[in-house]
Amino acid sequence: MKIAFIGFGGVGQALAKLFLRNVEQLKKQYGIEPVVVAVTDVMKGSIYHPEGLNTNKLLEVVNETGNVENYPDQAGLIKGWDSLKTIKNSNADMIVEVTYTDVKTGQPAIDHCRAAFQNQKSVVTTNKGPVALAYKELSELAKKNGVYWGFEGTVMSGTPALRMPIITLAGNEISEIKGILNGTTNYILTEMEKGSSYEDALKKAQKLGYAEADPTSDVEGYDARYKAVILANYLMDEEIDAEDVPCKGISHFTEEMVQEALEENKKWRLIARIKKNEEGVKATVQPELIEVSDPLAGVTGATNAIVYECDLAGPIMLTGAGAGLVETGYSLLIDIIDFQRQNAQI
Amino acid sequence: MKIAFIGFGGVGQALAKLFLRNVEQLKKQYGIEPVVVAVTDVMKGSIYHPEGLNTNKLLEVVNETGNVENYPDQAGLIKGWDSLKTIKNSNADMIVEVTYTDVKTGQPAIDHCRAAFQNQKSVVTTNKGPVALAYKELSELAKKNGVYWGFEGTVMSGTPALRMPIITLAGNEISEIKGILNGTTNYILTEMEKGSSYEDALKKAQKLGYAEADPTSDVEGYDARYKAVILANYLMDEEIDAEDVPCKGISHFTEEMVQEALEENKKWRLIARIKKNEEGVKATVQPELIEVSDPLAGVTGATNAIVYECDLAGPIMLTGAGAGLVETGYSLLIDIIDFQRQNAQI
Repeated sequence: MKIAFIGFGGVGQALAKLFLRNVEQLKKQYGIEPVVVAVTDVMKGSIYHPEGLNTNKLLEVVNETGNVENYPDQAGLIKGWDSLKTIKNSNADMIVEVTYTDVKTGQPAIDHCRAAFQNQKSVVTTNKGPVALAYKELSELAKKNGVYWGFEGTVMSGTPALRMPIITLAGNEISEIKGILNGTTNYILTEMEKGSSYEDALKKAQKLGYAEADPTSDVEGYDARYKAVILANYLMDEEIDAEDVPCKGISHFTEEMVQEALEENKKWRLIARIKKNEEGVKATVQPELIEVSDPLAGVTGATNAIVYECDLAGPIMLTGAGAGLVETGYSLLIDIIDFQRQNAQI
Repeated sequence: MKIAFIGFGGVGQALAKLFLRNVEQLKKQYGIEPVVVAVTDVMKGSIYHPEGLNTNKLLEVVNETGNVENYPDQAGLIKGWDSLKTIKNSNADMIVEVTYTDVKTGQPAIDHCRAAFQNQKSVVTTNKGPVALAYKELSELAKKNGVYWGFEGTVMSGTPALRMPIITLAGNEISEIKGILNGTTNYILTEMEKGSSYEDALKKAQKLGYAEADPTSDVEGYDARYKAVILANYLMDEEIDAEDVPCKGISHFTEEMVQEALEENKKWRLIARIKKNEEGVKATVQPELIEVSDPLAGVTGATNAIVYECDLAGPIMLTGAGAGLVETGYSLLIDIIDFQRQNAQI
């Protein structure tokens, strides 16, 4: 399996490390022998060798110099190709799309996926943009070209929020999905339950790396909203528009609100909710006041959780990490294993 | 797909009803057209027709008369075959084994599975006996004969405790599995947390159908022990013996114990725990005192939950029903869908 990394930040590097660490298991158990042929990153440069790069060396060079173009020169090594040229002209058959997520435009990731599919190349990605904004077009394009598109990591990272219901709950009608899909806000809310102010909890989240310097996307619910759209697109088979999803965040929350709720045996949680009925699929993202006995109230810290209301299996809840470099790197690996399974029927 | 029911109690009938209810979805989405050719049950008689029975009529006859042999007579209808004769001599290619579970001997279910595999017939079952007591022999026999063996329902009924980790967490090393695998005892413990005595909680569980008249298997932890053995056999690839699993139940529990724990912000839960290390796989079933902040402490009533400690994806928890006729009937359906997927690669 010839692999090109489009983007090579923490998540891409985590996957490359998993290739090295699990080399024997991947070969023996799944018949996967990943060969990294290209890496291209707007900050870290671009290299390509049709016969493959030494992954160990590649990680070492990036780690030490910050630029893949410092990889030892050798016959056949090409430097400087941009993303689209790498996707179109390299001999990679699997594109690992891990560029920066711009969920407003979905670019450049949408163009990357489109180019890959048009050139009969498969894609695995953790990038919410293409799945939230161009699901129908891209999934049809992948299908038409007979290639694979994996995006497990776009919702709850390595926790199988997308594949679990499709595979292991097949045959159920899922009438509603609800969940805590943003770890940052859940961390802030549970810190506030311990007595923190909103500002202190946010600062702590930023210090721990849970929240970004500009926390808008998390605390205003936008991140959860895109995940809700992905769940609707993929699991409820109806394309909804992020703009049509009413979205409220938690940036207006006060200690008093959180403590008052606790006194009434309730907790605030930022809930993404996707409902299906005769009229179609509707989603919302908003803080909801739930009973402390509600399973979602027991979800604390940066943990994520999702509940699928199934007509046959009943309510099924899945709880796990929603972020983390290794966890998100793993989400790409399970997509690659799934791709291999579909191809080789192992 | 020609189907023979070996046993036709509540779970078998629930599956038959799902065949009727989901007939279009099964055909269209999964290419499954189930034809029930035989039913044999020690209490409810036995019928077989190689061209198929009318499932609606069959359910009606059982419901109204308690005996399938009252099915309207017609050319080619055979009555009175026993289980083994039905498995060997009928034209069924899928055996639904839902006889009474005898986990001491595993019989007659082990013989049923063995006969099916030897006659190149696939089996789906909710019967813990064969999987807990004869996993290695039977899984090898099924493999050798190129047939399928599904048993998702043996742990947590329709909640995919077995297939979820195998499929959607593939590539992880699972170092530990722990869970609340018995709904009856969890119901009793959470009732006691509300102030009930053990005896009252047990009576209420019996009234609600959660506990049997003789509750020994549940309250002494034996049921959870067999499930722990199945998890070890299937997910940790090491056959362990139920006899070697230390097992303590909750029948000695007092209100004081439960209330004292609550005062210390702790809860008692009956935990099945399976650990893997260099020396092998070890399992225990016992009441454990856990922090109220532990996700398993939030699991209340008859609900089940299981946590997989994964090296890459982190701890993943799955929560859902552990019993129920429709839920358990569904566990057979998802096995059948999985069988079809493997055959047809849909």
